[in-house]
This record gives sequence, C-alpha cells and structure tokens, in this order.
Amino acid sequence: MDPDAVAKAFVDHYYSTFDANRAGLANLYQEGSMLTFEGQKIQGSPNIVAKLTSLPFQQCKHNITTVDCQPSGAGGVLVFVSGTLQLAGEQHALKFSQMFHLMPTPQGSFYVLNDIFRLNYA
Amino acid sequence: MDPDAVAKAFVDHYYSTFDANRAGLANLYQEGSMLTFEGQKIQGSPNIVAKLTSLPFQQCKHNITTVDCQPSGAGGVLVFVSGTLQLAGEQHALKFSQMFHLMPTPQGSFYVLNDIFRLNYA
Repeated sequence: MDPDAVAKAFVDHYYSTFDANRAGLANLYQEGSMLTFEGQKIQGSPNIVAKLTSLPFQQCKHNITTVDCQPSGAGGVLVFVSGTLQLAGEQHALKFSQMFHLMPTPQGSFYVLNDIFRLNYA
Repeated sequence: MDPDAVAKAFVDHYYSTFDANRAGLANLYQEGSMLTFEGQKIQGSPNIVAKLTSLPFQQCKHNITTVDCQPSGAGGVLVFVSGTLQLAGEQHALKFSQMFHLMPTPQGSFYVLNDIFRLNYA
C-alpha cells in the first residue's frame, strides 16, 4: 500500500465528484463515518451527504494547493489538503483546509472514516 | 474517553510547550511517530525534535483559532487545529493548519502518532 498513491487518487476523485455531483460522494462514507464541517459534527453517510448537498451554493470548483499524507496504522491513511474553493458568481475564492482519515474496506478500496473541514478566513 | 477533553488538554499542552521549550515535546512522540512539516517527512521522536528545535526562529507564540476533534478508532483521537504563529521580531503573524493523530499509551496517556503541519500562505 502506497499512501501517496492512495491519497492522490482519493483527492482527485473526491473533489472532482464534489464539484460535479455532490450526491455521488455517498458511497465514500459509511454508517460510522464522521464529518465536522465548520465545527458542526455530522455522523453517517446519509446525514453527511444531506449536509453536503444542502450547502448554500450550487456550482463550485476546488483548486488543490497541497496534499500531505501519512499511514495512520491498521491500513489507514491520513490525507491533509489545503486549497481554494471558488463558488459560482463570487469574486474571491475561499481558502480551506481539510483532513480525511481513510480506512480500507474488505473489497480492497477505502472509505472515509473521518472528515474535518475548515475555511481559513483571511 | 472524551475526545473533546483529550483534544483541548493536548492542544493547550502542546503549544505552550512548543512556545516555551521545544525540546520538551520529545516525550509526546515515539519511535514510530511521523511529522510532515511543510511537505518534509520526518520519523521518530529524536528526528522530529531535532527538526522542531532547528527551525530558524527562537521565540514564537501560537494563537489557536479553531480546534476540531473526532475519535479515529482503536482509542485514537484526531485533532485538527488552525491558528496563527507569531515569530519574535516579525510584524505579521503566519497562519497555519495542523493535524495530530493521538494514540493511547499503556500508561493511560496519549502520544502523537501522526503530525502534519502547513503554513497557509495568503
């Protein structure tokens, strides 16, 4: 298992799916998954996707600045991302930081156990 | 185990120790601990402390803006921090984001298994 390859593939897939079809993120989360979004804690794939799809913007585009990763033990991978989020119709992009804790599935893939998102206000 | 209480106690201890005596961070890391500092990967407590104590500034002060945490499985806690770092003699504070993966020790405390630090350039 190459954590860097896992992290790169995950980041590419996650943000391209987010920007194209947020509901498509549902199968990346499971029942025990947690999202902390700007301090709000949400648990379970259906609740997480409900939160993400109800964010008050339609079109957006993530631009990734840095991706760091480390093995977290038990086959897991920690992914730490910084970048900008451009919302349709807004002049300035928002800076954000986000971390994911990916855990292996029996099928040889990964799911998101932990997801923490914060905007970095200037 | 209350992850919020663990995270708060850890953040208070970590940054006050960093600002007062960086070498005192040694016992928070173990041989398998990893630090990614601005993209540079470093493993093991001695190497991590050597990196932190060799940073090109003497006095600094962290100010914490946000602390988020989640249980990571197997008794671990993920801690996600944003804040600013004020270096002595510098006019502007630097914005940073940092994540820690804390794992329990047999003695009932926690050590840092994973540590990822990034400056958030404006």
